[in-house]
Amino acid sequence: MRMIHVIGIGAGDPGYATAQAVEALNDTEVFFAMDKGEAKSDLVDLRREICETFIREPGYRFVELADPKRAKDGDYRQVVADWHEARAQVWAQAIETELDVDGVGAFLAWGDPSLYDSTLRILELVGRHLAFDYDVIPGVTAIQALTARHRITLNDIGEPVLITTGRQLRAEGLDGAAVVMLDAECSFLSCPASTRIWWGAYLGTPDEILVSGTVGEVGNRIVSVRADARARHGWIMDTYLLRPTG
Amino acid sequence: MRMIHVIGIGAGDPGYATAQAVEALNDTEVFFAMDKGEAKSDLVDLRREICETFIREPGYRFVELADPKRAKDGDYRQVVADWHEARAQVWAQAIETELDVDGVGAFLAWGDPSLYDSTLRILELVGRHLAFDYDVIPGVTAIQALTARHRITLNDIGEPVLITTGRQLRAEGLDGAAVVMLDAECSFLSCPASTRIWWGAYLGTPDEILVSGTVGEVGNRIVSVRADARARHGWIMDTYLLRPTG
Repeated sequence: MRMIHVIGIGAGDPGYATAQAVEALNDTEVFFAMDKGEAKSDLVDLRREICETFIREPGYRFVELADPKRAKDGDYRQVVADWHEARAQVWAQAIETELDVDGVGAFLAWGDPSLYDSTLRILELVGRHLAFDYDVIPGVTAIQALTARHRITLNDIGEPVLITTGRQLRAEGLDGAAVVMLDAECSFLSCPASTRIWWGAYLGTPDEILVSGTVGEVGNRIVSVRADARARHGWIMDTYLLRPTG
Repeated sequence: MRMIHVIGIGAGDPGYATAQAVEALNDTEVFFAMDKGEAKSDLVDLRREICETFIREPGYRFVELADPKRAKDGDYRQVVADWHEARAQVWAQAIETELDVDGVGAFLAWGDPSLYDSTLRILELVGRHLAFDYDVIPGVTAIQALTARHRITLNDIGEPVLITTGRQLRAEGLDGAAVVMLDAECSFLSCPASTRIWWGAYLGTPDEILVSGTVGEVGNRIVSVRADARARHGWIMDTYLLRPTG
């Protein structure tokens, strides 16, 4: 049966690759990758760098998958569900065409495949079109990269921490410690000025930027640093931890 | 100046060690470890296995640190704070005694040093007694191991997820998806029977146990499987993801 590895390659630094990920990389004949149709060449480069660094006998190839267009209007969940099904059909065809019946393919996921990543959901849909097996290789997420680079703990002693999105933060407000991902809108500005923030972009890469302080002290600085960096690179990946004061 | 690496070695499988962790392991002369005074020899073995597997030129040594007793009564936070300060004094003396002024030591943290681990908090206190530098190497947490082994995503699309403890879950109840750690009391039994649970113990090791279903279907089974496994091994490390239905 065809085998697919879903490999978490860590968030940024090629050094975040695990020994298990390296084994899976070396086991893979075909790497499937979405054509994002954007200027994310730094990200593509990092992916290729990881393959070149860790694969001992290069015989692998990359197959780019067309990414179906996502509807611009409609219910958010339905739009995403339709988009995932369209992707699943593209993926099923590619897996069937590009791999022998006992071939091994892989999808590389930034950070870890479980966290705000759609690969596993789409593969589950692919299973309706095509019989195949798959496994998941965990990876270091941007959350661990953020706390490591700031040298902080994620949780206070015995306390919980929420992993959430900018959209949710704006809708629900801050109630305890929270890590915010997928926030293009600097939603931390909606928090009280005394809220502590540890922010990081391009974590683990030579372009890494770290800022920490209270939202009142550093919030506007993060907004401008973020806009500058995004303009310079053409893309940005950032995340942050918030902790209410008191 | 003395240098300390705080190395996340991943949760269970030696294959979770990252390339960066392997570099830090190889850079280390002295590994400091707490003497837990318990029958956790499997965990100590795994730590030694990681060193033996990944260190290319064995010249390192282990130094066991006595673990000050923790008060049995009193305010939880104050008890932990006092215990951390007592540890910090032991650590400061050991770092000063065991390392040359330009020596390199390390603490190994299960999973990732940011998550329900006290190493970073204690090292911050050590800094009041002794000048030294340190860095943090992120690792794969039990959360990533859990989701990888169950091949599930941590979050629903665009939704948040809470990382919490058994104590907090019992106190606050379940409000959305939550990963529960440090739960010796099977607190998932306090959730509605329709709550979905993905449970894992000894994740990533040959002794791994995975159970999933609803709390009503598998809750009691997890309780008995957990008790049996704990009695057999003398210890258990487990974690689980809960998702309310509907």
